[in-house]
Amino acid sequence: MRHDANLTTDRPTFVTHLECSMTGERYEADQLHGLSRAGRPLLVRYDLEGVKAALTPEALAQRPADLWRYRELLPVRQTTNIVSLGETATPIVPLEKETGNVWVKDEGRLPTGSFKARGLVMAVAMAKELGVTTIAMPTNGNAGAAAAAYAARAGIEAVIFCPADTPDINVREIAAQGARVYRVNGLIDDCGKIVGQSKDTRGWFDLSTLKEPYRIEGKKTMGLELAEQFGWELPDAIFYPTGGGTGLIGMWKAFDEMEALGWIGAKRPRMYAVQAEGCAPIVRAFEAGERHATRWEDAHTVAAGIRVPQAVGDFLILDAVRASGGKALAVSDAALVKAVDDAARKDGLLMCPEGGATLAAYRDALAGGLVDAEERVVLFNCATGLKYPLSDQSKYLDRHQPIDWGEL
Amino acid sequence: MRHDANLTTDRPTFVTHLECSMTGERYEADQLHGLSRAGRPLLVRYDLEGVKAALTPEALAQRPADLWRYRELLPVRQTTNIVSLGETATPIVPLEKETGNVWVKDEGRLPTGSFKARGLVMAVAMAKELGVTTIAMPTNGNAGAAAAAYAARAGIEAVIFCPADTPDINVREIAAQGARVYRVNGLIDDCGKIVGQSKDTRGWFDLSTLKEPYRIEGKKTMGLELAEQFGWELPDAIFYPTGGGTGLIGMWKAFDEMEALGWIGAKRPRMYAVQAEGCAPIVRAFEAGERHATRWEDAHTVAAGIRVPQAVGDFLILDAVRASGGKALAVSDAALVKAVDDAARKDGLLMCPEGGATLAAYRDALAGGLVDAEERVVLFNCATGLKYPLSDQSKYLDRHQPIDWGEL
Repeated sequence: MRHDANLTTDRPTFVTHLECSMTGERYEADQLHGLSRAGRPLLVRYDLEGVKAALTPEALAQRPADLWRYRELLPVRQTTNIVSLGETATPIVPLEKETGNVWVKDEGRLPTGSFKARGLVMAVAMAKELGVTTIAMPTNGNAGAAAAAYAARAGIEAVIFCPADTPDINVREIAAQGARVYRVNGLIDDCGKIVGQSKDTRGWFDLSTLKEPYRIEGKKTMGLELAEQFGWELPDAIFYPTGGGTGLIGMWKAFDEMEALGWIGAKRPRMYAVQAEGCAPIVRAFEAGERHATRWEDAHTVAAGIRVPQAVGDFLILDAVRASGGKALAVSDAALVKAVDDAARKDGLLMCPEGGATLAAYRDALAGGLVDAEERVVLFNCATGLKYPLSDQSKYLDRHQPIDWGEL
Repeated sequence: MRHDANLTTDRPTFVTHLECSMTGERYEADQLHGLSRAGRPLLVRYDLEGVKAALTPEALAQRPADLWRYRELLPVRQTTNIVSLGETATPIVPLEKETGNVWVKDEGRLPTGSFKARGLVMAVAMAKELGVTTIAMPTNGNAGAAAAAYAARAGIEAVIFCPADTPDINVREIAAQGARVYRVNGLIDDCGKIVGQSKDTRGWFDLSTLKEPYRIEGKKTMGLELAEQFGWELPDAIFYPTGGGTGLIGMWKAFDEMEALGWIGAKRPRMYAVQAEGCAPIVRAFEAGERHATRWEDAHTVAAGIRVPQAVGDFLILDAVRASGGKALAVSDAALVKAVDDAARKDGLLMCPEGGATLAAYRDALAGGLVDAEERVVLFNCATGLKYPLSDQSKYLDRHQPIDWGEL
């Protein structure tokens, strides 16, 4: 089969409607939507009986191994609206030097080097399908880079806002991919406010996390891929770095859809939402037994991707974590940096800080008895470690000095 | 099928022997080898009749989409010696805004962010299989990073030498992945001399380009993948950034092996070896009608990966280019930087400078009538653009200043 069969073969689509994730209120498909009237994320619903008749795991296995092989479970109607930079399935790489039975799902292999590609390729394709000409969004870096790349490809203008201290590499990547990018004196939710305040007067479509319905549909492919990679038996536990939480919510949605399709059973992984101690609103709400999380003031962590003081989908994250029997866990910057170091040095896998946070949390969970060494555990490394300064490696720097050949 | 079936399923192996690429002299398989007695690269030979009976394109399509699905055409005998960081097939991404019919094979998606992973995963697995405890090699950056990562995973010590002006990100990546790394006052062939002079006294196994026989076997999987992705009809032209040339030589070898297996016909792509004007020894030799290339003095180019003044496989590169009806082409730094800019801004694809060189060369070839717009052309982007400073994007920097929300 040719590599592009997923992108060029017209296939039946099964979206029936959208509904408010809080109230269940119904919304029409194939129209532009932001949040629901209740101010909450919208979820896309499918005719799963129709999907069941059209698609089997065996048929999936015959298709090229990219995200678009799940077309029947995705919202894009027209093949011509698919924008793609090659969203290949990401590998799960065992950490052989860690105690236990633990794989890293290495999302850094996606276009633009992060899992943000999954959500943004879907959101931009749907924006194209629904006639959007300019998108705008806040970002801690990686989402903006993915949005810029796909918007460039789709011929859509992109306006991106990031905190002033976003690493240069991210800002330059966004600009290189043709977007207008602004640094903002504030955090990501401050950036989001600018988008919210300006979008109507400026004609921007707001692509913020969970404020349009399709990023979550892209992110849910992480759950679909995992099931396929584990032979349709989900792992026992998933550690997920949690900022806006789209991926965790998306995977949880994918699990329900797969069960309805008969592809998996009722068993679910325990979902561990991992945050940094310097920005842990979901952990605080989890421990307090709350369904919503209040804003975390003075947020700080070296793991910029999870420096998200407030998440519009907070209750969806907390509901899933609780229903799964999992937990919300916070780790220190020191522990996550050490985890990044260890995985690189011992297992040759260069993770991002947020990925390192999941390894640190796994170690805590194993030590604390939350996880058994026999259980199958998946950690999400959400971006390539190459996007981050390796300042922690300075202990090697004395060996980097130019040497004379005679000296060796 | 589970994701790791390629890594865990024992399969028959078919290596019969090795032979000198210049003289054809025969060498035993399953022993450590460097260059041949004639000082030339060794090539691995297989019982292709045996492979033909054991493996079909249809069977391949059923396996997980990573490099190890070609096990029968690779040298590793024992499943337990496979080191892997998830060498997934790389996508071919169309450049929709370019004139013609042109795809980028995006090798930046491999572990450690470059195509060097293909060669080094194989070389390190074979080093493990043959009992090596320390490897050493020169690098312009990416090969060293891949070697370090796989060596860490295999429990083999790695000693890496790179030119003093190798970008920090590469040096730090190598160190983070547990290798000893030295900067050297010289170019990559100077680094290679250090390895050559010290390896016997220090007990290092030399992993330099083409100085051991297995990196080429890993690199040839680029050719196998391309054939599969194009439905077993090879593209009309391939533009390959040429430093040491292992990939070009490897693909050419793969094409011959696939023809012997009956998987493809006699048609070959025209191979275009792309170099930078500031370091073009292969281009000079091609134009002079020579079979060997003399060292290029005062080599300079922003594309460090092709800043290779002298290649031990020069005649193999030149033979393949000539046999294919292709050509060796040089491009200016200005042209390759512009190509990187354009692909990012218009097509959302951030290439490395060496990948940009192939796009610049393609544009020249199209304008000069070497390639028709109807032909199917593949450019090799050998590494993720994220490894390179985006200094050329400074025109956007005035937009990056912190702004007050009122200003917008």
